[in-house]
Amino acid sequence: MAVTELTHLETSFLHTQLSFKTTRLFNTRCQVLGRPRNANKVLCSVSTNQVPSTITPQQTDSSKSKRDCYGVFCLTYDLEAEEKTKSWKSLINVAVSGAAGMISNHLLFKLASGEVFGQDQPIALKLLGSERSFQALEGVAMELEDSLYPLLREVSISIDPYEVFQDAEWALLIGARPRGPGMERADLLDINGQIFAEQGKALNVVASRNVKVLVVGNPCNTNALICMKNAPNIPAKNFHALTRLDENRAKCQLALKAGVFYDKVSNVTIWGNHSTTQVPDFLNARINGFPVKDVINDAKWLEEEFTQKVQTRGGALIKKWGRSSAASTAVSIVDSIRSLVTPTPNGDWFSTGVYTNGNTYGIAEDIVFSMPCRSDGDGDYELAKDVIIDDFLRARIKKSEAELLAEKRCVAHLTGEGNAFCDLPEDTMLPGEQ
Amino acid sequence: MAVTELTHLETSFLHTQLSFKTTRLFNTRCQVLGRPRNANKVLCSVSTNQVPSTITPQQTDSSKSKRDCYGVFCLTYDLEAEEKTKSWKSLINVAVSGAAGMISNHLLFKLASGEVFGQDQPIALKLLGSERSFQALEGVAMELEDSLYPLLREVSISIDPYEVFQDAEWALLIGARPRGPGMERADLLDINGQIFAEQGKALNVVASRNVKVLVVGNPCNTNALICMKNAPNIPAKNFHALTRLDENRAKCQLALKAGVFYDKVSNVTIWGNHSTTQVPDFLNARINGFPVKDVINDAKWLEEEFTQKVQTRGGALIKKWGRSSAASTAVSIVDSIRSLVTPTPNGDWFSTGVYTNGNTYGIAEDIVFSMPCRSDGDGDYELAKDVIIDDFLRARIKKSEAELLAEKRCVAHLTGEGNAFCDLPEDTMLPGEQ
Repeated sequence: MAVTELTHLETSFLHTQLSFKTTRLFNTRCQVLGRPRNANKVLCSVSTNQVPSTITPQQTDSSKSKRDCYGVFCLTYDLEAEEKTKSWKSLINVAVSGAAGMISNHLLFKLASGEVFGQDQPIALKLLGSERSFQALEGVAMELEDSLYPLLREVSISIDPYEVFQDAEWALLIGARPRGPGMERADLLDINGQIFAEQGKALNVVASRNVKVLVVGNPCNTNALICMKNAPNIPAKNFHALTRLDENRAKCQLALKAGVFYDKVSNVTIWGNHSTTQVPDFLNARINGFPVKDVINDAKWLEEEFTQKVQTRGGALIKKWGRSSAASTAVSIVDSIRSLVTPTPNGDWFSTGVYTNGNTYGIAEDIVFSMPCRSDGDGDYELAKDVIIDDFLRARIKKSEAELLAEKRCVAHLTGEGNAFCDLPEDTMLPGEQ
Repeated sequence: MAVTELTHLETSFLHTQLSFKTTRLFNTRCQVLGRPRNANKVLCSVSTNQVPSTITPQQTDSSKSKRDCYGVFCLTYDLEAEEKTKSWKSLINVAVSGAAGMISNHLLFKLASGEVFGQDQPIALKLLGSERSFQALEGVAMELEDSLYPLLREVSISIDPYEVFQDAEWALLIGARPRGPGMERADLLDINGQIFAEQGKALNVVASRNVKVLVVGNPCNTNALICMKNAPNIPAKNFHALTRLDENRAKCQLALKAGVFYDKVSNVTIWGNHSTTQVPDFLNARINGFPVKDVINDAKWLEEEFTQKVQTRGGALIKKWGRSSAASTAVSIVDSIRSLVTPTPNGDWFSTGVYTNGNTYGIAEDIVFSMPCRSDGDGDYELAKDVIIDDFLRARIKKSEAELLAEKRCVAHLTGEGNAFCDLPEDTMLPGEQ
C-alpha cells in the first residue's frame, strides 16, 4: 500500500484548483478543461440542455500531470439533467488513499459500479497516492475510464491529501506503510501514525463537515484515533476502524462448525483491537436465531479454536494464494460502508471500530474499539442494546482494551497529549497482515 | 493464467462424484458432505422446512483434496425454500477456467455479488485450475467463503474439465498458456489450441446442452473456433470470443476525442480478430445519436490514430501499472455476459466474436469473427441490421478475415479438418497481451 506524501501542486495549477473548489461549493457541475499546458479553464454545466449535436475536436493526449481530474473524467457532462431524468441522487465525493494498491484495485471498481452506494448514486472518486505510485495511479484511472461505469462521473488523482479530501463525504484510508523487516509494532505505530495525523489535519480543513472516515491501514484502531484527534472539527463518531473482515471470517467459521450456510449466522461481534487481542464474540452470536452455545455444543472449540481460526485465516490464505487477502478485504470494506448507508436488519448488528466515549459496555473511554452497532442507514450508528457480557468475555475485552490504551500512550506525540511512552508487551499483528 | 490439465480424480472419490452428478440432473439441491477421509455421503435437501434449530457439530478442518465442493459451500442449505420466499431463480452453474489468475480474481467476486446475473439469481461457481495452481485456487475459494455472498451457494474447485463443466450453463474460458520468450503466434495457437480442443470435448460431453461459452484466453477467436469444433453437440451460435474490452476502449477514446462523456457513445463495433488486425468501426458509431464522422471532424485521427489508440491501450497500461489490465478485462467480461442476459437498448448493439456462418455482412463463413450483435436478453443474439460498410471499412475487415482464415489453417489438426499448414505473416498480438 502506498504511503501518502504532502507535495504541493505546481503554482501554475493553483488558480485552477481554487476556482474549481469554489465552484463546487455551490454544487454546480464543473470540470477543469484543457491539457497540462493550458489547464486554466473552468467550465460549469449548470443548464439542463447543453448536449451539443456537433462538437469541436479537442487535443486529447492523456495528462501526465498531477491535476484534479483524469482523462475522460475531465470532460463536461450534464449531471443535473441526469439527476432529473434518472432520479439520481446528487454526486457523492469518495476519497480513497492507497489507491494504487491491491485492495483499492478491487474496491474502486465496486464503488464505481454502484454496488456500494446504490444504482441511483453518481460518484466522484478522488484517489490519493504517493510520488512513487503516481504512474500506477494513472494506470488505475485508465482502467476506470475503460470500464465505462455510468455512475462514475469524476476521477481525480493526486499525492496531496488537501486536494483529495476536498469536500469528501467518505474517506477510505487504506494506504499505510507496510511493516519492514525487524520493525516493531511501536515503530509502525509511529511511522503510520504520522501519515494519519497528517491526513486528519487535511480532513479537518477541507473535507465535508460530516465526512465519514474508515481506516483500513494498520494498526487501524490507533490510526483512526490519531486521525480523529487531528480533526477536531469533524464529529468523533464519524471515525471507523475496519474490523468487518474479522467479523465475516468469524461468521464463516461458525457456519462451518455448525454445518449451516453462513447466511444463518447473525449478531457476531468483533470486540476491541484489530490485532491478536481482538475478541470474536460467540456469547452473543446467533445461528438461525438461537444462541451459538445452544447450537454448537463444543465449549473448548468456542473458547479456544474459534478465535484462533478467525485470526489465522489471513496467514493461511497467504500460504495458499501467495498474496494477502485483497479481494475479501475490499468486500468487507463494502460491507462496512453498506452497513452504515442501509438500515440494519431487525435484531441484528455489525462490528466496527468506533470511539468509545459514552459507550454502555464499560469499555474505557477515549480509544477506538470495535463494538456491535446498528444503523438507520443514514451513515450514522448507535451501539447495539441487549448485549450480554460474562466474565470470560469481559476478561478478554479488558486485554484488548489494555492494549489499545498502551498503543495510545505510544502515540501521545501525535494526538497532542504530551510525550509518548511506549511499553507494548508483545507483537500482536494478525498473521498475514502487514 | 493457469493452464488446465486433464487429471482424473482418485478412484475413491469417483462414486461420490457420479452420485452427485446424477442427483443434480433431477434438479434437487444436493451437497457432498464429509471430509476427504469419508467423502462418500450425498445429502439432498428437497424438503422446504429443513432448517434445524440445533445441529450436531461436525469436524470442519478445511479440505485439502480435489473434491467437488469447497469448505462452507459443502454444507446443506435449503435453496428451494429461498427460491420461494425470495422469488429467486433456480441455481445457475457457471464454470470458470484460469480461476486462480488475476482476471478471475476480479471476475469471480462480481459473479458472486449478483452484479452479472442479477440479485435474484443464486449461483454455483465451478473453478477450473491446474495442478500447479491448485493451492491458489483454494485461496480463492477461501476468500469467496469469507465474503459471505448470499447468492453464492456452491463453490467447487478442480483440475478436471469433465468435472468442472458438468451441467455448466456458462463456461468462461479465461485460462490459457501465456506466450513465452521467442514464442510465435503459431506456437501459441498450437499450445493453447490443444487446451481449448480438450475443453470443447469436455463441454460436449458434460455441459448443459445450451451452455454459453465465452473464450478470453488468447488467441481467443481461433481458440473459440477450436472449442466449438470439438463440441458438435452444442449449438455453434453459443460460442463467443471476447472483444468487449476493445469496444469499451474504443468508446472511451471516441468520447475523449469528441469531448463528451462516454455514455453518449453508442453503436461501436469491433470487427474481426482480437489482434492488431481488429477493426474499431467509426463509420457506424454514434455520439449523442449522430454519426461520429459528423461530430469528430478529423478524418486523419479517425482513420489512423483511433485504431492505434484502442490497440496500444493495453501496452500503455502495463507501462503505467506494471501489470496487465485484469480489472477492466473482468469488467468487460461482465459487460459481455450482461449484454446477452439483458435486452439491448433500442437502436444500439454490442460487439462479440461469434461464428460467421449465415452472416449478412459478406464475411467468410466458418470462422469466429467479432461483429455487431443485439440480444433479447435470453442469452442468445442476432446480428445487427442497418450496418453500413464502405470500401475503407471493407478493406480492413478483409484483412482481419484473411488472418483468421490463416489461423484456421494453422489449427486444422485441432478442428478435425486435416493437416495444419501455418503461414501467418507477422506478429499480430495486441501490445500488453499475453
